[in-house]
Amino acid sequence: LASKLPDVGTSVFTRMTLLAQETGALNLAQGFPDYAPPQALREALARHALSPDGHQYAAMPGLPRLRAAIAAQVGRLRPGALAPDPDAEITVTAGATEALYAVLAAVVRPGDEVLVFEPAYDLYGPAIRLQGGVPRYVRLPAPSFRPDWDAVRAAFSARTRLVLVNSPHNPSGAVFSAEDWDALADLVDGTDALVLSDEVYEHLVFDGAPARSARQHPGLRGRSFVLSSFGKTYHATGWKVGYCVAPPALTRELRRVHQFVTFSVSTPTQLALADALEADATDAHARGLADFYQAKRDLFRGLLADTGWELLAVPGGYFQLAGYEAFSGAPDVEFAEELARRWGVAVVPVSAFYHDGYDPGLVRFCFAKEAPTLEAAAERLRQAP
Amino acid sequence: LASKLPDVGTSVFTRMTLLAQETGALNLAQGFPDYAPPQALREALARHALSPDGHQYAAMPGLPRLRAAIAAQVGRLRPGALAPDPDAEITVTAGATEALYAVLAAVVRPGDEVLVFEPAYDLYGPAIRLQGGVPRYVRLPAPSFRPDWDAVRAAFSARTRLVLVNSPHNPSGAVFSAEDWDALADLVDGTDALVLSDEVYEHLVFDGAPARSARQHPGLRGRSFVLSSFGKTYHATGWKVGYCVAPPALTRELRRVHQFVTFSVSTPTQLALADALEADATDAHARGLADFYQAKRDLFRGLLADTGWELLAVPGGYFQLAGYEAFSGAPDVEFAEELARRWGVAVVPVSAFYHDGYDPGLVRFCFAKEAPTLEAAAERLRQAP
Ligand SMILES: CSCCC(=O)C(=O)O
Ligand SMILES: CSCCC(=O)C(=O)O
Repeated sequence: LASKLPDVGTSVFTRMTLLAQETGALNLAQGFPDYAPPQALREALARHALSPDGHQYAAMPGLPRLRAAIAAQVGRLRPGALAPDPDAEITVTAGATEALYAVLAAVVRPGDEVLVFEPAYDLYGPAIRLQGGVPRYVRLPAPSFRPDWDAVRAAFSARTRLVLVNSPHNPSGAVFSAEDWDALADLVDGTDALVLSDEVYEHLVFDGAPARSARQHPGLRGRSFVLSSFGKTYHATGWKVGYCVAPPALTRELRRVHQFVTFSVSTPTQLALADALEADATDAHARGLADFYQAKRDLFRGLLADTGWELLAVPGGYFQLAGYEAFSGAPDVEFAEELARRWGVAVVPVSAFYHDGYDPGLVRFCFAKEAPTLEAAAERLRQAP
Repeated sequence: LASKLPDVGTSVFTRMTLLAQETGALNLAQGFPDYAPPQALREALARHALSPDGHQYAAMPGLPRLRAAIAAQVGRLRPGALAPDPDAEITVTAGATEALYAVLAAVVRPGDEVLVFEPAYDLYGPAIRLQGGVPRYVRLPAPSFRPDWDAVRAAFSARTRLVLVNSPHNPSGAVFSAEDWDALADLVDGTDALVLSDEVYEHLVFDGAPARSARQHPGLRGRSFVLSSFGKTYHATGWKVGYCVAPPALTRELRRVHQFVTFSVSTPTQLALADALEADATDAHARGLADFYQAKRDLFRGLLADTGWELLAVPGGYFQLAGYEAFSGAPDVEFAEELARRWGVAVVPVSAFYHDGYDPGLVRFCFAKEAPTLEAAAERLRQAP
């Protein structure tokens, strides 16, 4: 059986998690918290699990109650973003991953080009290629990892169907400024190109900076698919529920595909999330995430200050990029392997985020961890390598 | 935005469920039970919901514990099917729907043909076309709905990449005999064609007939993707967990796509299912399903005996096909609409299972309902139309 994705192996996240398990290393590689979703949310899931009702197919686009709660929250949290219409503009998906895949499958035709900024989350390229699309990669300049819009414009062509953006950015944590959003809007203005805005770290923007969404930009709202993740927001990456907000015409195409990719999403889980959102009319949970994660970022950075690790700025997200040149000039994959085996900390080598294996000499730490985990990891990292 | 699936609208299941809600009709349309998953399974989900652990990403191919339990059960229940290797041959998916989609995305290339027997589950055709594939439809002859293998052979060509089979069959309930499996094996023998065997109703085979799987056939096992659904087996269609069993080389390709379509499946739900399977070493639940559903079938048929409804035989599954010619010569879509609006029972018109709208003059009832629901529906149906 000839492979449609011959160059795709086990993802770096899976490989590094396995390496952590094999070596007993602390897993700061794959992006997930080592703490639980909020107690009230878990209790809500337990309640719906025990109920005799609510175990059959949810409505294909998502439970109406959950979509209504999402619409209300987006309206409250996003000044300037009109609250989306829950019936026509919101689709609940099996994680942001399914939303991403389904948007690409709905929009990209053979030969269409999709602009992808690298370093990039590992699924973007293969998911585009599965549609017969052509990823056009534009490198984000280190250490800011903010787009060089001249380079982006140079890569944009009449064949560009979609521009895929991700702010806050995985792995760098870079956050689009108002100027970046404007530049994106200018780029697509007057063209047919659409925007896929992966905003799964939307609430994790630090130092008081505003967290802007493509939905807030009048030049983008009408042509953007905006992705969110309950997994990231509620410390529940394993629940696999996300959603996409997009104008009615785009939502219609997304749903045409979504109905054949998964049809619908876990009913008890959607009920629990609806309970949690409805019970939090001030959005205290989402609003608290920036401080919560900023404290983790600052703790981790403080513990590694005055060491050989060169810590890049982290404006958002839950990852810390670090240069290790003071210790080693090895390729990042080799360095990451050694770090896990000899020093007991698993990380992701940043070259894994480039389609051509480009190696910027950086590794990625996930700091979505309890303080004792971060302290233990830093203790090892201070001695390493 | 030009649609990639311009002819695809809201699925018939969604439309009929909405019609039932709008009219207050008893919903015998969309296939789902009106009873709950087993108490022990719901308690298991509640337990894992409350636990502080088990809320982050599961392993991409499925929780090892769940895959081990599946492998053990398949080995016990399927005489002649060697127990699959949980590491290399089982992939847990977001319902059988995602498995179906991901197999098609992994295997079908532009221009490849896929044999589809009609009436067919509504997602087969569009999901094939999204890959650039060409569905080649072969009509199953009523009233048995068993394949006419001469017609199948005539449709098979050098471009046939995949043969999609579904036994027990939705909507007809037809079950492949040993001869059907042999004919399928003969058909693909010596070719590169693969088999996608949708066996989600695998435990629902009636009247003491054996429930055979593609995995049991030595000529098919090595080239078949076999799909199962916990939703069907555990009365939990809304939990959205299924799995695919396939030989290692096929599983590898499926996983290459699965990791980009959903990545992984709800961890608490997988843990609960693993508990349920491990606690049932004699497979009492799965083994009891045939009797459980046969009783429902017999009840429903008995209630409609000696009426104008022409009840087709139901060898498996949880649907009853019925002719309504004694009442009306209307197209089935019109008849179904009238049945819901005037007589209070929602059904699926069988023409919805044909790509060209062919209308065999049949409607489909789902009998996965409590006895009082079936009795109330039959009461209405005896008076209708
Ligand atoms: C789906 S595994 C990857 C998790 C993640 O978002 C990351 O580590 O970047
Ligand atoms: C996913 S909705 C369809 C449910 C079903 O299997 C059917 O009604 O045929």
